[in-house]
Amino acid sequence: MPVATIPPSSGTAAQIDGVSRARDRRRQRRARSTTRQGAPNIVRRIPTYDILDEESLVRIETTAERILAEVGIEFRGGDARSLELWREAGADVTGETVRFPPGLLPEVLRSAPSNFTQIARNPARSVEIGGSNVVFSPAYGSPFVMDLDRGRRYATLADFENFVKLAYSSPHLHHSGGTVVEPTDVPVNKRHLDMVYAHIRFSDRGFMGSVTAEERAEDSIEMARLLFGADRLETACAILANFNVNSPLVWDATMTRGIRAYARANQGTVIVPFILGGAMGPVTSAGAIAQAHAETLVGCALAQLERPGAPVVYGNFLSSMSLRSGSPTFGTPEPAAGSLVVGQLARRAGLPLRCSGAFTTSKLPDAQSMMESATSMQAAILCGANFILHAAGFLDGLLSMSYEKFVLDADYCGALARYCEGVSVTENDLALDAFREVGPGNHFFGCGHTMANYETAFFDAALSDNTTYEEWSEAGGEDSAGRANRAWKRMLDEYEAPPLDEAIDEALKDFIARRKRSMPDAWY
Amino acid sequence: MPVATIPPSSGTAAQIDGVSRARDRRRQRRARSTTRQGAPNIVRRIPTYDILDEESLVRIETTAERILAEVGIEFRGGDARSLELWREAGADVTGETVRFPPGLLPEVLRSAPSNFTQIARNPARSVEIGGSNVVFSPAYGSPFVMDLDRGRRYATLADFENFVKLAYSSPHLHHSGGTVVEPTDVPVNKRHLDMVYAHIRFSDRGFMGSVTAEERAEDSIEMARLLFGADRLETACAILANFNVNSPLVWDATMTRGIRAYARANQGTVIVPFILGGAMGPVTSAGAIAQAHAETLVGCALAQLERPGAPVVYGNFLSSMSLRSGSPTFGTPEPAAGSLVVGQLARRAGLPLRCSGAFTTSKLPDAQSMMESATSMQAAILCGANFILHAAGFLDGLLSMSYEKFVLDADYCGALARYCEGVSVTENDLALDAFREVGPGNHFFGCGHTMANYETAFFDAALSDNTTYEEWSEAGGEDSAGRANRAWKRMLDEYEAPPLDEAIDEALKDFIARRKRSMPDAWY
Repeated sequence: MPVATIPPSSGTAAQIDGVSRARDRRRQRRARSTTRQGAPNIVRRIPTYDILDEESLVRIETTAERILAEVGIEFRGGDARSLELWREAGADVTGETVRFPPGLLPEVLRSAPSNFTQIARNPARSVEIGGSNVVFSPAYGSPFVMDLDRGRRYATLADFENFVKLAYSSPHLHHSGGTVVEPTDVPVNKRHLDMVYAHIRFSDRGFMGSVTAEERAEDSIEMARLLFGADRLETACAILANFNVNSPLVWDATMTRGIRAYARANQGTVIVPFILGGAMGPVTSAGAIAQAHAETLVGCALAQLERPGAPVVYGNFLSSMSLRSGSPTFGTPEPAAGSLVVGQLARRAGLPLRCSGAFTTSKLPDAQSMMESATSMQAAILCGANFILHAAGFLDGLLSMSYEKFVLDADYCGALARYCEGVSVTENDLALDAFREVGPGNHFFGCGHTMANYETAFFDAALSDNTTYEEWSEAGGEDSAGRANRAWKRMLDEYEAPPLDEAIDEALKDFIARRKRSMPDAWY
Repeated sequence: MPVATIPPSSGTAAQIDGVSRARDRRRQRRARSTTRQGAPNIVRRIPTYDILDEESLVRIETTAERILAEVGIEFRGGDARSLELWREAGADVTGETVRFPPGLLPEVLRSAPSNFTQIARNPARSVEIGGSNVVFSPAYGSPFVMDLDRGRRYATLADFENFVKLAYSSPHLHHSGGTVVEPTDVPVNKRHLDMVYAHIRFSDRGFMGSVTAEERAEDSIEMARLLFGADRLETACAILANFNVNSPLVWDATMTRGIRAYARANQGTVIVPFILGGAMGPVTSAGAIAQAHAETLVGCALAQLERPGAPVVYGNFLSSMSLRSGSPTFGTPEPAAGSLVVGQLARRAGLPLRCSGAFTTSKLPDAQSMMESATSMQAAILCGANFILHAAGFLDGLLSMSYEKFVLDADYCGALARYCEGVSVTENDLALDAFREVGPGNHFFGCGHTMANYETAFFDAALSDNTTYEEWSEAGGEDSAGRANRAWKRMLDEYEAPPLDEAIDEALKDFIARRKRSMPDAWY
């Protein structure tokens, strides 16, 4: 009930007291940053949803162990140092194939932290990754962008900056992300510099660096050093990077060199298999999960061999295939159920968990897109994911970042944050006095308990229309994508960049200019 | 991968064997009725998601007990027999107010079955309600219908019949529902006859009867007797009926007389509070849940007092309110989390659980509608609901039944059925041999394990588009609502009524004609 419906002069003492308490609460709430809990990320109060029993989990773990011991992982591309590290650790290295005796990886992983802080340049935006924390980060890696006005087109650096600004402006996201889109108007070998700069300049949140070449990883880390100071990076995670396995069972040298670069600098690596069941792994979920577990543990362990204690995140990216089209499908039920199991495995391994995200193959921000994205996002929450990449903007099987979907997804992130609060059962929540006050057949609109609690009672998604059909119809009968179209434009219009120390800004610009001058443009 | 990609003459023995086994499986699958498990409803293989601990649950139960003992429930409208039954059972009856000593309701409810079968005229469609069973039933009660061609309009009997046909035609729904829409072109006092007849004539699934007056309940039950034989109803549940509490804490005589009519005939009653937090109950979830628990237990117990052992279902309908519009909201996070707790309470009470459904306040089958519906449907599955009403068609805060949303929701029911299968961990699922066969860096497309498993591996929603952007764009660039529009029309075109015994049909028609002649038309 809107405040306007409360006659300020006619309330009972309890009501007036209620109004004043409600106002205090509203003030407190606004003073907090992004969540009701006052944290820069969600701190979940609901348990994880564990669907498999001990015996089944052990069967999966044992299968992963046997894959690693009997089939092994190939380290392709000539990263001799990685092979050397594995040999020293006690693995069986034959050519590029590494086989892992049972027990080796858990032993190596004992040095990996179960949770860590990623610092942000605004300390109030530093996030906890691990434990009961949940961080929402934008979608990652699309070469295209879409909006309702212009359709699909190649993404540019201007789009990249827009999505950094939108993530910064959203109260429901916690992180600036990484390659939020590919800025295809910048040479491939230079775009990482502009991307990292955009994250630093247009946001004050945590961000991710480049993984496409070792020197680009080093550049990204160097920019984090310029921002935070070199010393700070020795003790804190200031930049994350997302590394993909070349599933099945291959780690490419570009990735392993990158992992080692970040680990060497004590920075965070997120290790993610990419398995479309039936293509890069078995069509059966349990097999795909066993494979993913094997591939992920190897990547996480490699970071530990390079530098024990470096933050690592156990990543999960399961998907499925359409029998009709032969295409990948996203947001379908099998990967959702599979993610719940992956969550159990990650916790048993003692590692923070990354899960994805607002998946969909739809090409529009339509019913299909949110049916699939909600399914996938719910699974990410239920499985206990700590870092949820692709939480906003994902369309078109990750080929396109959508402006409208971004703000719709951000709304859903807000709803999920509330869901993570669970059901509180204090005396106030139980409201026994309210029943005594109101009694059978009467309404609770103006009762003291309602007045004292209504402002924080319910999440109200900004883009959801809850008006009557008549009101909605008279206002133009718009769908939620149309509302989203106006919302992202308004957010960009109202955007104000957070202040950045001028000396740091200059140092970053100098570094970028110097690095760009040192190499010719490469476009592929 | 489509079958067409397999060269039939060039496969290895394992592949050929795989193809033939896959064909067998496909045949078996088609032979089954609506689920892979061969049951007419879902049998879940995943646990319920229990978010509250014992202590919190006891606090809620104790609050419900105190509401019942101290505030009580009013039985309004002059159903003297209900008051008499409560007095005989040991409740404190003062005027229309009944107060329940702690322990009375659990004692009365000991006779209620924890699960039961609702028989259908096609025995293969009889559903189990309770335990690990899940039944999806269409939305219930909208006065309007909507489709993309004609917008919103008052529902007619022709619409009613259409939705019965659509539910019958969907492989993902298990039940024909009740008042799927209000047939507003038929007099209020006669429409129940046409509705029950439509369920019987145009479907062969379980259905629900009228609750709007005792004599309409009796008519509905009489029609079930004509269909199944009077004797059969003495031992089996052949018709369900959904009764709403007049929340807060009021049971209306129309409802209590109806409950007793169905229970007297040994038929199933679903007891459902209707609480919009802040209006018919407290704005805090725990309080609303305690209230709902109290109201539901009283309705279920009343059925037991009328006839011990009559099937009853513990119903759940939580919702929230928008602070912006003051309107009810549906598919929001608080009721979703609340439903998980309600599920725990229903299981502790030993009763089958009804939960809702594909909730939304959106006026279109758009992104908002599926974001909200998926949230609500996921909660219904996670909380362990056995009978999920409003599983398809819900739009506009239940004021409108949507043709497009109906088929989109039905698709989502199919996805949830697959989700309920969880993750199977057999030797075949773990696929260790496939890893040995394929090895690092190769694809699983043609391997023996893929060939043997791919046909049943992944759920493929009929209305989801998984093609490439280019394919999708060339095919017209349609959204999922557009595909849904064509789908429901095709389903109605292809609909064929299940055969109905002519003598039964005649008996039903005679009964309806006789009953209609006996009363004047009433339009309100």
